[in-house]
Amino acid sequence: MEPIEFRTEPSRYRHWRIEIDGEIAFLIMDVDPVGGLAPDYELKLNSYDLAVDIELNDAVQRLRFEHPQVRAVVIKSGKDNVFCAGANIRMLGQASYGHKVNFCKFTNETRLAIEDASAHSGQVYLAAVNGSCAGGGYELALAADHIMLVDDRRSTVALPETPLLAVLPGTGGLTRLTDKRKVRRDLADVFCTTEEGVRGQKAVDWRLVDEVVTRSKWDEAVKARAKALAQKSARPRDGKGVTLAPLERRTENGALTYSHVRVEIERDRGIAGILVQGPAQAAPASSDAAQALGSAFWPLAVARELEDAILHLRFNEPKLGVVLLRTEGDAGAVLDHDRFLAAQQDHWLIREIRHYLKRVLKRLDVTARSLIAIVEPGSCFAGSLAELAFAADRSLMLIGTREGDNRPPATFTLSEANFGLYPMGNDLTRLATRFLADPRCVERAKEKIGAPLEAEAAAELGLVTAAVEDFDWDDELRVMIEARAGFSADALSAMEANLRFAGPETLETKIFGRLSAWQNWVFQRPNAVGAEGALKRYGSGIQPSFDRERI
Amino acid sequence: MEPIEFRTEPSRYRHWRIEIDGEIAFLIMDVDPVGGLAPDYELKLNSYDLAVDIELNDAVQRLRFEHPQVRAVVIKSGKDNVFCAGANIRMLGQASYGHKVNFCKFTNETRLAIEDASAHSGQVYLAAVNGSCAGGGYELALAADHIMLVDDRRSTVALPETPLLAVLPGTGGLTRLTDKRKVRRDLADVFCTTEEGVRGQKAVDWRLVDEVVTRSKWDEAVKARAKALAQKSARPRDGKGVTLAPLERRTENGALTYSHVRVEIERDRGIAGILVQGPAQAAPASSDAAQALGSAFWPLAVARELEDAILHLRFNEPKLGVVLLRTEGDAGAVLDHDRFLAAQQDHWLIREIRHYLKRVLKRLDVTARSLIAIVEPGSCFAGSLAELAFAADRSLMLIGTREGDNRPPATFTLSEANFGLYPMGNDLTRLATRFLADPRCVERAKEKIGAPLEAEAAAELGLVTAAVEDFDWDDELRVMIEARAGFSADALSAMEANLRFAGPETLETKIFGRLSAWQNWVFQRPNAVGAEGALKRYGSGIQPSFDRERI
Repeated sequence: MEPIEFRTEPSRYRHWRIEIDGEIAFLIMDVDPVGGLAPDYELKLNSYDLAVDIELNDAVQRLRFEHPQVRAVVIKSGKDNVFCAGANIRMLGQASYGHKVNFCKFTNETRLAIEDASAHSGQVYLAAVNGSCAGGGYELALAADHIMLVDDRRSTVALPETPLLAVLPGTGGLTRLTDKRKVRRDLADVFCTTEEGVRGQKAVDWRLVDEVVTRSKWDEAVKARAKALAQKSARPRDGKGVTLAPLERRTENGALTYSHVRVEIERDRGIAGILVQGPAQAAPASSDAAQALGSAFWPLAVARELEDAILHLRFNEPKLGVVLLRTEGDAGAVLDHDRFLAAQQDHWLIREIRHYLKRVLKRLDVTARSLIAIVEPGSCFAGSLAELAFAADRSLMLIGTREGDNRPPATFTLSEANFGLYPMGNDLTRLATRFLADPRCVERAKEKIGAPLEAEAAAELGLVTAAVEDFDWDDELRVMIEARAGFSADALSAMEANLRFAGPETLETKIFGRLSAWQNWVFQRPNAVGAEGALKRYGSGIQPSFDRERI
Repeated sequence: MEPIEFRTEPSRYRHWRIEIDGEIAFLIMDVDPVGGLAPDYELKLNSYDLAVDIELNDAVQRLRFEHPQVRAVVIKSGKDNVFCAGANIRMLGQASYGHKVNFCKFTNETRLAIEDASAHSGQVYLAAVNGSCAGGGYELALAADHIMLVDDRRSTVALPETPLLAVLPGTGGLTRLTDKRKVRRDLADVFCTTEEGVRGQKAVDWRLVDEVVTRSKWDEAVKARAKALAQKSARPRDGKGVTLAPLERRTENGALTYSHVRVEIERDRGIAGILVQGPAQAAPASSDAAQALGSAFWPLAVARELEDAILHLRFNEPKLGVVLLRTEGDAGAVLDHDRFLAAQQDHWLIREIRHYLKRVLKRLDVTARSLIAIVEPGSCFAGSLAELAFAADRSLMLIGTREGDNRPPATFTLSEANFGLYPMGNDLTRLATRFLADPRCVERAKEKIGAPLEAEAAAELGLVTAAVEDFDWDDELRVMIEARAGFSADALSAMEANLRFAGPETLETKIFGRLSAWQNWVFQRPNAVGAEGALKRYGSGIQPSFDRERI
């Protein structure tokens, strides 16, 4: 099978259009029925598959970087009488189990990116639901800050997954009902078991939408609402956008090479290595200079490349269970960039870059692979790049130098970035999560900002898992990787998903924890996916046959 | 198959002994290898199955009610050199999927009951780990307030589930590591992938245990520690225990009749009805009078009977997907008892009863059945019993009277009990969770304490889902039940598990949400349960064969 490609740009979109009218952008969903990833289903009624969501993700990203003047984004449908019918059911019915799970993870991340834009970017999303809106369609609307529904006695919002398909509204649907819209649980129960959905004033009363508007006043009301939302924004009126240039990537024997990121593959051992290179230059002198660098600016380039690498590994290399995270380069230059990011964090572009790095690191947090950071001479685990080590399940750091290697011992360096720039989905920094038992450990680490810590000092502070002598190093690493490869892939995914999220849960972690875990469960149950299950029987005219046993 | 029986008492225990020495109780695990539920596995090395945990649950309960003078409980092993080897693996390997899931739910509830006793009952638990302690054994220790480990170079604590069995430490293990003991995530990762576990000072340094003590000082140190823990307790030194008399239950054609609870079954429609009867008398005049009633005191009797009914339905009637919750009796008498419980809540016995009712209601919250409360003339959904309606996925209330029925219209009445006596696992009351969107709704409800609300008023306040006219009633109920019966049992369980827990997550909800959902997922994966999976191959001498695909 062809690897799935995540790189795209508006000129290549088949399913979305971006129309910009001053401070308001219209993100128009108009799915090409034959433009799906696979040829054996048709994306009717604005139903979607991964191909559609890859474009949506790209559009959300580009609106933030390329269109600083946009302060409100209206998601609407380009089709008559239908907003979006949700994820395509034939696609779900035929997709492999792994694809379904990863599809849901990606679409969840896209919706969270929409909320992140509303919360941190001053691009507030408005869902203008101008037609029927079901399942994933309503889940998309739920990601917006404000939902408008046309009041025409026909247009409804609905989550028919349970009654119709024997699955969950798993793209955040159930969690956003209870925790974002705070719909009363019994009304949510009625809503989620009512195939035809809810319309009109009742949808407002139940908190499912924020307002209903008649068709005659629709366009005007949407525009007025978008303008009102735009008022709240702190986006610059005179910012100049940064074009996200095509992402260059070379592929050779499965290895990927980008400008600052390299992915290497040891297929027989089930290992992928991700190497991130530090910046070759010092930080730019000013935000203007950073802006002039555009998407070649090191932190932005690294974010894009790392994100593409993660998505590639998730979808296209499912049998590589261990990911070794390495860095290479000049720690001083990384720290220099961190200082620049911190100093300029009120500049809209720098803020975007910071939040983008934050989202990419969060993608690592929910990636179902064992992540092991390797801290060796020549590496630059410093500041922002040290977050890679904190995102890892374990980190190993070499003590001293290596025989025959004249580079100085590896060091590990903290910066301000580690204490607030990149919160996890649980809203804590990785260090705060790591040291949940004793916040004084965070304080102790903070005192070391800027100090290059050698292995034993880093281990002493709890920043790395183990400091290892050269003569033990190869064995230690080999044994760890072989052990990991020998364990059940599923047990590891499940274990890591639990150990990575200590402490408070948020809407976001509830989606990936509670909701996704249940959805992944349902996706295995014969009632949903068996030969007589609802996903297989959908549209056949034959009722599914269910085992009535309650688990 | 014989139905599983949850009623037991110390004289019938085969696996546990309770030894009481003044303010300290020793709860001694000494599993009879041939005393398991099924004959085809041996419970070696203090490994356990449901039979063992049913006794533990009973013991924890009886210590609270029957032994008010006990202020510290020491869990220890009655065998040499082994504390507990965890859940029996052959049992897990052969158990049905549904049994595994319900077994884990029950054992989780038992461990939470231990923590509840430490937190609310002043019976502080100490785990005296005097030998090897693995898997569910360590998870049992994790439920204690304080863990002591013998320091003999041999005794370890371990969670070998992932490396050895391809499953999770799902009886709270992973969650208690990260959220209770706050073990650093990378150390937790090492620990959970190290089959042989961790011992000695390292176990203390990693926060896995609270102290290690050499064998020569062991007995003395355990006693001293137990005495110190007992100091913290507010248990009465002169309280007289209440014996939990054998629970009387009559069974006829699947229906169960207790003194105040009845369970009726419509097997063809997949319905169980639970009817709770209000008290026949007014509340006792004093706590002494309540104590004299003993386990016949109405709230205590109801708690015990309802709990037994819930557990029976979970394990023995998995195909009854809808549970109709009804009440019958005098609302005034229920409210009278609520006033008594509130007024006497500092009395140790009354406090125990309140927390017991709380735990039973929590069992409902995590029961994987559609719960529908039916509020009709003759019912007494008032105060404590109104919590049944708030625990339900929906509630239907009849407007006015029924033709040919001369009872007055149904009423729904709140009491102080609804505003704090029975928090859910998320630490909020059911009303606060219900009205997460607008706390003023809680205030509005509070103003109605004591007022008998007829259907439309109750619906207006959001206390019931729908107020239904007599002429619609039968149809409405029939259609709802038939629809529910027509949906996938799995999708309903998963949906309900999400909708019931709006708002914050706690250690407890994380165990039932994140951890259990993942464990239930793992329990379906071929790597664990397939013919070549780890649970099936365990002890065979043949390595399991794993699919390496990461999901």
